[in-house]
Amino acid sequence: MSIHPGKTTLIGVLGGMGPLATVDLLQKIIEETPVSRDQDHVPVVAWNVPQIPDRQRALAGTGESPLPALLAAVSQLNSLSVSHIVIPCNTAHHWFDTLAAASDAPLIHIADATLASVAYLVKKRTEVLQNIGLIATKGTLEAGWYQQRFAALGAATLEPDEQEMETLFVPGCYAVKRGELHKGGALLGQLAQRLIDRGAQRLILACTEVPPALAAVNSHWLDVSLDPTRALAQACVREWQRSDKE
Amino acid sequence: MSIHPGKTTLIGVLGGMGPLATVDLLQKIIEETPVSRDQDHVPVVAWNVPQIPDRQRALAGTGESPLPALLAAVSQLNSLSVSHIVIPCNTAHHWFDTLAAASDAPLIHIADATLASVAYLVKKRTEVLQNIGLIATKGTLEAGWYQQRFAALGAATLEPDEQEMETLFVPGCYAVKRGELHKGGALLGQLAQRLIDRGAQRLILACTEVPPALAAVNSHWLDVSLDPTRALAQACVREWQRSDKE
Repeated sequence: MSIHPGKTTLIGVLGGMGPLATVDLLQKIIEETPVSRDQDHVPVVAWNVPQIPDRQRALAGTGESPLPALLAAVSQLNSLSVSHIVIPCNTAHHWFDTLAAASDAPLIHIADATLASVAYLVKKRTEVLQNIGLIATKGTLEAGWYQQRFAALGAATLEPDEQEMETLFVPGCYAVKRGELHKGGALLGQLAQRLIDRGAQRLILACTEVPPALAAVNSHWLDVSLDPTRALAQACVREWQRSDKE
Repeated sequence: MSIHPGKTTLIGVLGGMGPLATVDLLQKIIEETPVSRDQDHVPVVAWNVPQIPDRQRALAGTGESPLPALLAAVSQLNSLSVSHIVIPCNTAHHWFDTLAAASDAPLIHIADATLASVAYLVKKRTEVLQNIGLIATKGTLEAGWYQQRFAALGAATLEPDEQEMETLFVPGCYAVKRGELHKGGALLGQLAQRLIDRGAQRLILACTEVPPALAAVNSHWLDVSLDPTRALAQACVREWQRSDKE
C-alpha cells in the first residue's frame, strides 16, 4: 500500500515492552526528523500492546515465553504492509532471528543501529574508544550483541557485575516499569557512576527503560551516553529519507 | 482476536495529526493507568501516519480533503480488530460522523470525553462554572461541539476573536508542528491570558498542539486548564478497566 506518492516506507513498531519505551522511540523519531510540517514526518504504526510475557523472567527460566505474542504482533504489522519492523526493547532481540525469519518486512536490529552511531562518533571526532560501558539486562549482556560489535571497532566492553545487577539495575528497571522514574533514575545513575569509575569513556544505555529514567533525574551521565533507542530512531529516519530520494 | 484472557479491549489510535499529538495521547494513557507492571497497561495500536492532508486548510477551502486518508486509516485499524477508535486531533472530528459510520469499532468523541471530565469537576468541587474559555482551531470553534456540551451544563463559552486567532493561535499552532515548542508556548500562553482576562474560569485546550506547548514553557495557566487529550486518555483507561471487570 502506497501511503504517499513515491514513498513506500511505513515503519512498524513492535512495542509494548514496556509501553513507555515505545512512546520514547516514537518521540525520538519525531525529534530526529527535520521537518516544517506534519506531512514530512516518518509514517509509523505502533503495536503498543503490553500483554507480552516478561522477557527478563522468560530468559531467567521463571516465566513463559513471549515468542507466541511477538510472532502474533509481527503478523499483525505485516498485515498492514509495513516496510520495516523495529523493536524498542533490547531484551526482546533474543528472539530477533526467529521473528525476522517469520516476517515479510525486514527487521532492523537495535545493536546494528547503535553500532552505526558509535562508528559515526569515532569517525567524526577521531575519538579513540578503548572502553565502552554497557548497561543492559542480563539477557542482553549474555547475548553478546553489543560486545561483539564493539570488539569489531577495537573497543572493550565494561559490564555491571552480578551484585550491581541485583542491587542497582534490576530494581531501577522495574521502578521505571511502575512509572517511578525518579526512583529508577537514582538507582541507574549510581550504576552509570560505577562503570565510569572503572574507566568507561562512553555508556551504552541498552535497556529502553534507562534513558527516560536518567532524563527524569537530569543525570549528567547522559552527556557521555549513547541511547540505542535514539540510534534506532535515526535508523528509521534514514530509511524514510532514502525512500524519499528514490 | 483476544489479546489477553478475559480482555477484549484494543484501543485504535487514528493519529498523525500531528505525530506529536499522538505521542502525547499515548504518554497520557500510560500516565492515567494505575499499574505495577507492563502487562497491566492499556493495549493500544497507533496509526501515526502524518501523510494526511492538512485539516485546517481543507476546512478553509484552501486544501484537499483529508477524508479519504482518514477512511483508509479507519479501515486499517478495523483490520486489526480494534475495540474502539480515538482521534487525537480535535479538528479531524469534523469528519467524525462519516468515520463512525464506516467503522466496525465505535469511535469515542473527544468532546464527549472532555464533557465527562468537566462534569466530574463540577460535581466534585461543587464548582459553579459560568464561563469556560475555549482554545481551538477555527474549524473546531465553528463546529460547536464543545459549546453545545458546555451549554447543557449551564456554562457559557468564551472564544478567541478573529484577530487573536490570526496573531496568536494560528502561528502558535504551526510553531508546534515545526517542533518549536517554546515559541508556540509563548504565543498560546498570551492567548490563554486574554481569555482569563475576559472572565474565563477554566480553559479547554481543544487543539492537541496546545498542551505540549504550554507545558514546554511551564505555563501557570495549565493549573486552570482542562486537556481534552488527557480526558480522551482517561476515557480509554475506563474502557480498559471496564473490560477487566467483565
